[in-house]
Amino acid sequence: MTDFSRSGARAFDALRTVSITRHYTMHAEGSVLIAFGNTQVLCTASVEEKVPGHKKGSGEGWVTAEYGMLPRATHTRSDREAARGKQSGRTQEIQRLIGRALRSVFDLKLLGERTIHLDCDVIQADGGTRTAAITGAFVAAQDAVNWLMAQGKITQSPILNPVAAISVGIVQGTPLLDLEYVEDSACDTDMNVVMTGAGHYVEVQGTAEGVAFTRAEMDQLLALADKGIRELIQLQKAAY
Amino acid sequence: MTDFSRSGARAFDALRTVSITRHYTMHAEGSVLIAFGNTQVLCTASVEEKVPGHKKGSGEGWVTAEYGMLPRATHTRSDREAARGKQSGRTQEIQRLIGRALRSVFDLKLLGERTIHLDCDVIQADGGTRTAAITGAFVAAQDAVNWLMAQGKITQSPILNPVAAISVGIVQGTPLLDLEYVEDSACDTDMNVVMTGAGHYVEVQGTAEGVAFTRAEMDQLLALADKGIRELIQLQKAAY
Amino acid sequence: MTDFSRSGARAFDALRTVSITRHYTMHAEGSVLIAFGNTQVLCTASVEEKVPGHKKGSGEGWVTAEYGMLPRATHTRSDREAARGKQSGRTQEIQRLIGRALRSVFDLKLLGERTIHLDCDVIQADGGTRTAAITGAFVAAQDAVNWLMAQGKITQSPILNPVAAISVGIVQGTPLLDLEYVEDSACDTDMNVVMTGAGHYVEVQGTAEGVAFTRAEMDQLLALADKGIRELIQLQKAAY
Amino acid sequence: MTDFSRSGARAFDALRTVSITRHYTMHAEGSVLIAFGNTQVLCTASVEEKVPGHKKGSGEGWVTAEYGMLPRATHTRSDREAARGKQSGRTQEIQRLIGRALRSVFDLKLLGERTIHLDCDVIQADGGTRTAAITGAFVAAQDAVNWLMAQGKITQSPILNPVAAISVGIVQGTPLLDLEYVEDSACDTDMNVVMTGAGHYVEVQGTAEGVAFTRAEMDQLLALADKGIRELIQLQKAAY
Amino acid sequence: MTDFSRSGARAFDALRTVSITRHYTMHAEGSVLIAFGNTQVLCTASVEEKVPGHKKGSGEGWVTAEYGMLPRATHTRSDREAARGKQSGRTQEIQRLIGRALRSVFDLKLLGERTIHLDCDVIQADGGTRTAAITGAFVAAQDAVNWLMAQGKITQSPILNPVAAISVGIVQGTPLLDLEYVEDSACDTDMNVVMTGAGHYVEVQGTAEGVAFTRAEMDQLLALADKGIRELIQLQKAAY
Amino acid sequence: MTDFSRSGARAFDALRTVSITRHYTMHAEGSVLIAFGNTQVLCTASVEEKVPGHKKGSGEGWVTAEYGMLPRATHTRSDREAARGKQSGRTQEIQRLIGRALRSVFDLKLLGERTIHLDCDVIQADGGTRTAAITGAFVAAQDAVNWLMAQGKITQSPILNPVAAISVGIVQGTPLLDLEYVEDSACDTDMNVVMTGAGHYVEVQGTAEGVAFTRAEMDQLLALADKGIRELIQLQKAAY
Repeated sequence: MTDFSRSGARAFDALRTVSITRHYTMHAEGSVLIAFGNTQVLCTASVEEKVPGHKKGSGEGWVTAEYGMLPRATHTRSDREAARGKQSGRTQEIQRLIGRALRSVFDLKLLGERTIHLDCDVIQADGGTRTAAITGAFVAAQDAVNWLMAQGKITQSPILNPVAAISVGIVQGTPLLDLEYVEDSACDTDMNVVMTGAGHYVEVQGTAEGVAFTRAEMDQLLALADKGIRELIQLQKAAY
Repeated sequence: MTDFSRSGARAFDALRTVSITRHYTMHAEGSVLIAFGNTQVLCTASVEEKVPGHKKGSGEGWVTAEYGMLPRATHTRSDREAARGKQSGRTQEIQRLIGRALRSVFDLKLLGERTIHLDCDVIQADGGTRTAAITGAFVAAQDAVNWLMAQGKITQSPILNPVAAISVGIVQGTPLLDLEYVEDSACDTDMNVVMTGAGHYVEVQGTAEGVAFTRAEMDQLLALADKGIRELIQLQKAAY
Repeated sequence: MTDFSRSGARAFDALRTVSITRHYTMHAEGSVLIAFGNTQVLCTASVEEKVPGHKKGSGEGWVTAEYGMLPRATHTRSDREAARGKQSGRTQEIQRLIGRALRSVFDLKLLGERTIHLDCDVIQADGGTRTAAITGAFVAAQDAVNWLMAQGKITQSPILNPVAAISVGIVQGTPLLDLEYVEDSACDTDMNVVMTGAGHYVEVQGTAEGVAFTRAEMDQLLALADKGIRELIQLQKAAY
Repeated sequence: MTDFSRSGARAFDALRTVSITRHYTMHAEGSVLIAFGNTQVLCTASVEEKVPGHKKGSGEGWVTAEYGMLPRATHTRSDREAARGKQSGRTQEIQRLIGRALRSVFDLKLLGERTIHLDCDVIQADGGTRTAAITGAFVAAQDAVNWLMAQGKITQSPILNPVAAISVGIVQGTPLLDLEYVEDSACDTDMNVVMTGAGHYVEVQGTAEGVAFTRAEMDQLLALADKGIRELIQLQKAAY
Repeated sequence: MTDFSRSGARAFDALRTVSITRHYTMHAEGSVLIAFGNTQVLCTASVEEKVPGHKKGSGEGWVTAEYGMLPRATHTRSDREAARGKQSGRTQEIQRLIGRALRSVFDLKLLGERTIHLDCDVIQADGGTRTAAITGAFVAAQDAVNWLMAQGKITQSPILNPVAAISVGIVQGTPLLDLEYVEDSACDTDMNVVMTGAGHYVEVQGTAEGVAFTRAEMDQLLALADKGIRELIQLQKAAY
Repeated sequence: MTDFSRSGARAFDALRTVSITRHYTMHAEGSVLIAFGNTQVLCTASVEEKVPGHKKGSGEGWVTAEYGMLPRATHTRSDREAARGKQSGRTQEIQRLIGRALRSVFDLKLLGERTIHLDCDVIQADGGTRTAAITGAFVAAQDAVNWLMAQGKITQSPILNPVAAISVGIVQGTPLLDLEYVEDSACDTDMNVVMTGAGHYVEVQGTAEGVAFTRAEMDQLLALADKGIRELIQLQKAAY
């Protein structure tokens, strides 16, 4: 389709090597290290037996996410958000996205009045941290739900569907699946797609970084994303 | 296509009444009050003869946006962000979106080392504040560019294309154009589309609020958005 | 009295054109756009069925105010306070003044345990924003009280008296009523007076910006303020 | 004039015992502990050989003030502002007042491009802390100016006039000079007056805490303030 | 032992002149001005009839400390922490140390569910502010306990032991007791020791500012600190 | 010496299993994962070619540290400091300690005008995070120095000595080396010791959590710490 050459001779429609390590740290109810190539994100799921104010007395639970990047996860060191005293707009945007993505596959009534906190911390960044975070957070959330069932706190799983996410983009005219950092920096269009195991969209966020994109390009990107997410959902299942 | 009934007998594919008032306030280089039905946003464009750090010495300018909502623009009063001491994640997400949308149609080299600040303040909210903000900010930016040319500060317009935005969504199974608040609250899928005058996408942000959406639904929504944005771009032109 | 010449041939003891537009926005219980010449302030009154901590259980209500200025309400753009993360000392001083002024004409017992929030947002500034805010906030508060009575939530109005405010100052030796921006910038003495419909003082705040002022000058200024406020109170009444 | 009885049989028009201790701490260029009865404020003047941004290159200096209250200066402990992470509106209002008062008697050109910082910290509070602060800060500023002249940094004093301040108020119908805390809490009207040695006003800030006040009452209060400030200015001189 | 010469011909193992003034301010339950030479710290103890969240319902009380430095307590003016909007790491470290030191001699059960707040504010700094603060805070806490007993709120003192603190250090090879500022700036090793009346350690914090220190040097420093603290505890007792 | 039984039958004077993994992440000039038993800290060293203000023009460099804990590194999730908007006092205390410890073994002149940032992020916590951080940060700093030399930016190493740290404490009367979490929670005295390869102290911080400690106990603890640090310095060397 193009002659743009990817690192490691990766095909334009191939994911990077994905690894999913469960039980990565010992305290959390769910703890997953997910790698998309060199991008590594630690996703923990913590169960708390209370809900935020807007859910009190509703009989429903809540699922929420926070995202962070270690200062030297990136090529050049970035300021520590805790030291600067606030989270950047980018950080907030990403953690809101992760939270919405995960809530979309939860039946909050079945969860009961408790919260699952998903903490996604980027240990090493090479593009695609938000999509790796969503994909890994789902596995951590699944482990937390299994823990709740093993503890007898709930008897039916509140998870309705798996969910995963991938980035796609157009680099030098070529649509590519799962962008790594050098591709992401060079791309004209960048799209993040979140999809359920049923093949339905939860989020589609496409942005023209340089030239605006056409409907035909969008269709190509969505097709690539479909392929990638179906593979990721298989890999999530294989982690059990 | 459906029997969902909109306020004022509006058709599923009709915009609300749009009004664009230029020169709304007297100090700004561009000042536009835009209304999408009951939603009213004041968009001002301010020219500053300097650029942020990452553009210093580049010979390029910068275009940036800030967004705010008056505390009682909404049904119930919300806290004043200045009093609370920080902007919400939602506010930051929206102002980043407006900034990207406007930069996508600017040639920053032609702008020269100066900044255009776009301030979008919601006077009254009834759904679609971010899309009204982008559509109005473009007109304000155009006025600021005209002012720069009239002043002899630039000789060629840095604006490459018009840009406008609209929301679309699926409410009770019906795809609708330009959601007002009651529709937005009830919708299963909500999509904001930003498009240039050439009919190319700058941003597509679709979110499943309830049920995940299918590819077929997405295609319907994109078609509606296309129609709406073409009309908005005509209305922007008619404001001159 | 002097040969200082005001814009539009305004007399030294004349108010600018005042306009008071009720029901300016649709959600608030009281919503007033007030203009003192080119100065335009949107004043909304929001009723909340609870009181701050220091009034809980007292049987009394509370009236409080917040003040803001849109970034480009002024000649040159000022930073957005929400983005900077704090309100300036000036902002806090003004909103405390508005709150005290309005509380001075309220019987908080008759209001009952509820709060009226007055939000005064400057859309366009040309001097006198705080006095316009007080004068407009009173009308918004009156509308909120009327709404409470129409709802049957209270049977007797807690408003004891009208209240309005005006600025006076000495410019090039001449005492002037209702300073606009160019006069305010040039004045030696600047005084803001808040007075009830009974002609009694609620606040008198005089500041020597340049040369300190004498008792005789102060007497002249107070006489001008009296005249202006009596006219404003007539205009408030005429708005009904 | 009334039968309201003051502590220590103080006359309605008498100051509390005032003491002014120069060289109270050893590091500052001016350091004054001032007491108005039980109210004690430490006022230091620090000379810094630079000016804030808006004065750079102007050839003029700057005089600025900050105000603080030790947490247990008051009857019940108040939160430490440094721990809470922000200064209250009251604190900012007071420090802006002190700064304006002191600048009103300075010729900033004669000061040269340097700053005098006045820090007014309340060690013990019993009403009148802002007026004691202004009165003491003037003495500290005088000492800093003397130090600058002794160092040969300036040859002519930039101080044009002395300045002092006092509170007056109406308690149970009686106008009183120099309110202490119990009087301040009970008063209907509270006025702070700042006046130069020439008997001219720098600031007049009158507030009706309860009932609005008449012009006749205001005249009585201004007369009391005049008397008090003339005495304070004698006491400032006597401190040398 | 050395020929390093101290100001005022002070011996290497001598404290500076210590003075302890009780009842220094009038509102606090305990109020002590303590001086170690030119270092002056005002220590107040405030009793509050509630406890922080982690002690609610425990039947135990809490003892906590805050520390501040007036801006011109030092040679050159430092920024006011309340104005900067946060306490420095140094400030937090010191106030945590004071809190731990005081809690170490309290039986929190005997105190009952109430809090003693210790506010240590440095009026003038010349080295050793944290050790003076601990030594003075103990006296203020003792006075607050006496007040609680006099009020009949407790019948048995919760204080188990006196506690005091001193700094020691090595300057130009010489171990010195109670460093003043010029010594502290020049020292290679700086150690703060907190000890009870029983001669047991509560805290030992030794830091090599320049060259790392040996075990032999540490033993010398600990011996000096022992001597100093025994004298301070006598001076605390003599204050009654 | 005692019959207190440690997990895994560890001797009272034995370190936990220590592992030091260099090149743990790919972007940083030094990147070390250090484990003391279940405690895991990622220490990265980042070289920046500039220095903070107080070192500008001095010809000297700077070494500084920041410390963080992932929210679910601990038994129960703790708030994310970036979301709360400030670092706790504990965090600041620890990062100041790490910075001082590392600077104590650096010749800042030999480093030249550049900064080494040490970021110590706790992935999993089980006691001793600050001592693991110092011990690992030294290895990361060493790798950053090696990188600087390989790049030809410096020709002589600015590192004078290795440095490492360990905790010791008294639990149920028994002095123990390298406390894990359950021991740390139960201990009466907790001491952190930082020592150079030459066996000299950089920091000694002993705190009585419960009962104050005697000189004899302190001597026992220091002896244990000596033993542990000598072993750690061997392990640092073995990592090359």
